[in-house]
Amino acid sequence: MPFQPSILALCTGALFAGASAMAMAQQTPMETLQSDAPTNWGKWGDDDQVGALNYLGDAEVKQGAAAIQSGKTFTLQIPMTSGSGPVFPGRVPTQHFMATDAGVYMAGKAEPAPGGMKYSDDVAFMYLQGTTHVDGLAHAWYGDQIYGGKSEKTSVHGHTHADVGEIGEKGIVGRAVLLDVGRHMGSDDLHRLPTNTCINLEDLEATAEAQGTTINKRDILVIRTGSIARFWEEEPDEQWNAMNEPGLCHSQELLSWLDRMETPMIATDNIAVEKVVQEIDGQQYIIPLHGALMRDMGVVLSEIWWLDDLAADSAEDGQYSFLLVAAPLKVEQGTGSPVNPVAIK
Amino acid sequence: MPFQPSILALCTGALFAGASAMAMAQQTPMETLQSDAPTNWGKWGDDDQVGALNYLGDAEVKQGAAAIQSGKTFTLQIPMTSGSGPVFPGRVPTQHFMATDAGVYMAGKAEPAPGGMKYSDDVAFMYLQGTTHVDGLAHAWYGDQIYGGKSEKTSVHGHTHADVGEIGEKGIVGRAVLLDVGRHMGSDDLHRLPTNTCINLEDLEATAEAQGTTINKRDILVIRTGSIARFWEEEPDEQWNAMNEPGLCHSQELLSWLDRMETPMIATDNIAVEKVVQEIDGQQYIIPLHGALMRDMGVVLSEIWWLDDLAADSAEDGQYSFLLVAAPLKVEQGTGSPVNPVAIK
Amino acid sequence: MPFQPSILALCTGALFAGASAMAMAQQTPMETLQSDAPTNWGKWGDDDQVGALNYLGDAEVKQGAAAIQSGKTFTLQIPMTSGSGPVFPGRVPTQHFMATDAGVYMAGKAEPAPGGMKYSDDVAFMYLQGTTHVDGLAHAWYGDQIYGGKSEKTSVHGHTHADVGEIGEKGIVGRAVLLDVGRHMGSDDLHRLPTNTCINLEDLEATAEAQGTTINKRDILVIRTGSIARFWEEEPDEQWNAMNEPGLCHSQELLSWLDRMETPMIATDNIAVEKVVQEIDGQQYIIPLHGALMRDMGVVLSEIWWLDDLAADSAEDGQYSFLLVAAPLKVEQGTGSPVNPVAIK
Amino acid sequence: MPFQPSILALCTGALFAGASAMAMAQQTPMETLQSDAPTNWGKWGDDDQVGALNYLGDAEVKQGAAAIQSGKTFTLQIPMTSGSGPVFPGRVPTQHFMATDAGVYMAGKAEPAPGGMKYSDDVAFMYLQGTTHVDGLAHAWYGDQIYGGKSEKTSVHGHTHADVGEIGEKGIVGRAVLLDVGRHMGSDDLHRLPTNTCINLEDLEATAEAQGTTINKRDILVIRTGSIARFWEEEPDEQWNAMNEPGLCHSQELLSWLDRMETPMIATDNIAVEKVVQEIDGQQYIIPLHGALMRDMGVVLSEIWWLDDLAADSAEDGQYSFLLVAAPLKVEQGTGSPVNPVAIK
Repeated sequence: MPFQPSILALCTGALFAGASAMAMAQQTPMETLQSDAPTNWGKWGDDDQVGALNYLGDAEVKQGAAAIQSGKTFTLQIPMTSGSGPVFPGRVPTQHFMATDAGVYMAGKAEPAPGGMKYSDDVAFMYLQGTTHVDGLAHAWYGDQIYGGKSEKTSVHGHTHADVGEIGEKGIVGRAVLLDVGRHMGSDDLHRLPTNTCINLEDLEATAEAQGTTINKRDILVIRTGSIARFWEEEPDEQWNAMNEPGLCHSQELLSWLDRMETPMIATDNIAVEKVVQEIDGQQYIIPLHGALMRDMGVVLSEIWWLDDLAADSAEDGQYSFLLVAAPLKVEQGTGSPVNPVAIK
Repeated sequence: MPFQPSILALCTGALFAGASAMAMAQQTPMETLQSDAPTNWGKWGDDDQVGALNYLGDAEVKQGAAAIQSGKTFTLQIPMTSGSGPVFPGRVPTQHFMATDAGVYMAGKAEPAPGGMKYSDDVAFMYLQGTTHVDGLAHAWYGDQIYGGKSEKTSVHGHTHADVGEIGEKGIVGRAVLLDVGRHMGSDDLHRLPTNTCINLEDLEATAEAQGTTINKRDILVIRTGSIARFWEEEPDEQWNAMNEPGLCHSQELLSWLDRMETPMIATDNIAVEKVVQEIDGQQYIIPLHGALMRDMGVVLSEIWWLDDLAADSAEDGQYSFLLVAAPLKVEQGTGSPVNPVAIK
Repeated sequence: MPFQPSILALCTGALFAGASAMAMAQQTPMETLQSDAPTNWGKWGDDDQVGALNYLGDAEVKQGAAAIQSGKTFTLQIPMTSGSGPVFPGRVPTQHFMATDAGVYMAGKAEPAPGGMKYSDDVAFMYLQGTTHVDGLAHAWYGDQIYGGKSEKTSVHGHTHADVGEIGEKGIVGRAVLLDVGRHMGSDDLHRLPTNTCINLEDLEATAEAQGTTINKRDILVIRTGSIARFWEEEPDEQWNAMNEPGLCHSQELLSWLDRMETPMIATDNIAVEKVVQEIDGQQYIIPLHGALMRDMGVVLSEIWWLDDLAADSAEDGQYSFLLVAAPLKVEQGTGSPVNPVAIK
Repeated sequence: MPFQPSILALCTGALFAGASAMAMAQQTPMETLQSDAPTNWGKWGDDDQVGALNYLGDAEVKQGAAAIQSGKTFTLQIPMTSGSGPVFPGRVPTQHFMATDAGVYMAGKAEPAPGGMKYSDDVAFMYLQGTTHVDGLAHAWYGDQIYGGKSEKTSVHGHTHADVGEIGEKGIVGRAVLLDVGRHMGSDDLHRLPTNTCINLEDLEATAEAQGTTINKRDILVIRTGSIARFWEEEPDEQWNAMNEPGLCHSQELLSWLDRMETPMIATDNIAVEKVVQEIDGQQYIIPLHGALMRDMGVVLSEIWWLDDLAADSAEDGQYSFLLVAAPLKVEQGTGSPVNPVAIK
């Protein structure tokens, strides 16, 4: 009986040929790759659990509020459809069930409450990262340390450090800019990036310039690839696949720029913010930016956003900055949490 | 084998003696009680699904933004602790489990992914109203019609009208006022209302006056009782019980005032916004305001908020109005959804 | 928002073109088809909930025990692998998680209990028919009546008549015969029936004759197609698909024979005992034998059995009869229940 | 935020004052206690996963069958009622929901399948030891080794050694004897042992003698305390509590006797086979027999059985031996599994 088939298949080489025995080595490629990269460990105290979100204080909240012009709002979660949705291999979409509904009255199985009221009730079984979600800073790491230098042991059967609940407690409120890379660089009518596209720093800068958007320090970056919409695509040969989505790619330039910009958070409309599989100097990496951004710099990552409506509106009115308000659920010891972010323009 | 013991026990008289056979009657007490009460059916079109949230347009969003002064933020969900939390009888608190964590690497059961990354993953089983949550407008009703006059049949195995997903799609953004009734009328040091207290319109008005708070039309009302905190109380004899919490009580005056004020939503720090059991003219009612507000007027209800920190801050700085941003998850066909509301002062 | 995508897609024509509006008709094809077919309603009293299992009394148990020769035992459930297994469209395989394990001690998060004991604990989310299982007699029906003539309303939010819990209470103990149709009629080395094969009465009889097996009245029939094993097949083009599996096909001859034989139960190694889609006199039917056997005759159906090992052994020693002991879980109000049946030869 | 409140509270001293820092010590009390106790490690090979069940071979199965006299059968699971049942602290009872039922047809949300068939479907969320169940041999241990000397690491996120699935694969079939200690030693009309009663070897022997029962080598022991029935008791002051149930108590005499008797399995109608809290030579132990029997001797433990009906019948006809057939589900990597055992007299 092999270890239960799950997301872990990723690690054990079932999905990727050539997974080497690097775990035994003195130093993993990630450790080498990140040896001179920016880190924010200790910057906000030894016990900090929310990382670069600390950049968002009262002043930044007010700057976000100052971006509001028309009062238009956009909710940025994808629909949570029972049994259907784009998920990473090993997860299943949310399963939703009614615990009770009008059927019980229609069937004569229950009477209304005294006075006459009736009601419904429902439950769900869900992977907490199985829809639009925020990752806790402890969600991904390399070596044996998570964000802040705490032991990976803190993750065991519930994150006792840097869980998503801490981000839920803090909340996410600030000025955000939409970088519609899909519209700027995409080749099709739907303004989407082709599969397997690497988004680099110069792409972000070119997109901002094309949009006429100024990116301020401490702005939340909301990056549109157009990719997640392919999940609901009718043409099977163009349908969504978690493993080949376009996304950010690791580079020292990108990390340095994000560091200088004091970026608190990056949100995208793909499965992993970054391209899942990347090759750097001949070495294959899976989600290396999770190591660089989340683990080393404490930048909050948020995925599977619905950006098409916001992007269309921005293309029309030319306003790419807004107040972003998003608070994941306060899931104590949780890795991730579903969220329905709100953009207020 | 009796019908499975659940929240339905409420209806079948297990919790309340004297549940009469009113279901057979021509008209339930609720129908009589509400015969002349305000209704918003059809006001926003025959197929409207978000009711009084329609009062919140771009102008109201900007008025909410205008309430921001210091940039201080408060997240208003209670903690989601696995296996523990205040829930209505028949529900269980959220159950949270790690699907994977560092244990698998420590045990030698998984290798890091190519490059060296590791990660954790988690799942939850939850009653969707088992923490701070927003009710869909179809959640409670009387007679055989839900909000908007649609058939109660729309609730069967998934709400096909007025589900909470529609509120998630719209989002909740507007100016809100905190009415700290617990502080104004509570007798103890913790500024809490005694159990079984009815909150009436005059109590809201007296609280607003004592606070020096002006309630504007279309303001979201956030009412603090201080009650939910008793769940974490150490003294067993003072511990929280869903059935005897203080809350709003039904009256024609209250309904008329809320109607005139075009109140889009009421949020509270108790289990049901209202007192669960109420007696009106000698007749016992269970959650009659759910019928009057949710079903007839389309006022959105949201419960189990954490207001103690916001209230303490408001008592200190005297600012009781703020921008409220809350978007429940887009749970398609869902009755309710967890939410972590954000107040921005 | 369409009704949530689930097993119900079957009914709404998403899987089968040409789903007609027969629901509106006076009489469905099933009602016509079964108008003269055998029925056991009332045979064991008006409130009977276990149907043809009533044929299994103390005498039949002793006849089963008399079939024991060598004492060899076989457990007939397929493996319950987390996240993987053959399920009907709309279901997901069992999801299994550890609530705690040695990781918490290794991580220093928990101490052993006083004295030094440690332990693990686990949970599962499962579709109750998502592995080898027994159907309750109320699981499938036509018209508005289930087995015994009770209203279909009894199914609403929990079967209050003929739930699988009643079968769990009774248990299933009797003499069974294996009819290895796959070995007798299959064309390949793996002794499997081709996809879409109809198994008719004459095939059962020919198989019994080829095996030298006498089928007694009240024998439980265990029918091997060899099909379910294809789920774990390496060749993608031969892999398992719930919709085209071989299985029993409806005929009056088959029903009459089963009626005369007083067959208490039929178990198979496919998804539905019968071929899921059948055409009779130009009319398409989905699982019509569920209507004929389960609803009309009260014959218990059990699916997704693992029969390859038992069959290989029987082919070797020529013993095709045995004591069968299977008791589904006593899931009150349940539709189905997982089961691990035991054959004792 | 403390580690999530769960069954682990047991370990961390929340339930038991005086949990010492023995984890740091060189040797735990369990290691000292068991230093000279019987062990079966290696007896059935280094990779054995089913322990003393190996005592049950074809010969023992036939001896079990030889115990059948009348053909009467008893199913020994307690009812699985959604949301209600006796569980260990930290677990919740099974949660059962209909995924679909007749309500969808009544509400006009689904049409019957082509031909006219309708059906229901259901799901459950469950703690796998939250009803009558069998423990895998890896479920409990002391030191850092589980049964067979394998590392406790094998338990992490799924038991890769000695999981309950292996017992499901083997099945449990053999001769069993009921020892109705509750009837022999209980003081009340319901034939129950008082709470906190220790059952010792001499009590088992006295019970067997009073019953006129011969216990053979390799017999499965089914021990009735009468305790679990108190869960459904009407008098609150006599209701069931997992922590004070009567049960077996640890002694070298008991272990030696079970070793000599080659007992494959012990099943009881209480939460833990043994008394949960025991004091031996002034040291408090929690479930020490799990260490002695399950971890050291490989004796299979099974709990929360329903024995009152079987016991009443045995008291009447004097037959205390029977064929026992029980096969837990083949939950791969599982700790425990629900089971509905069948006694055939």
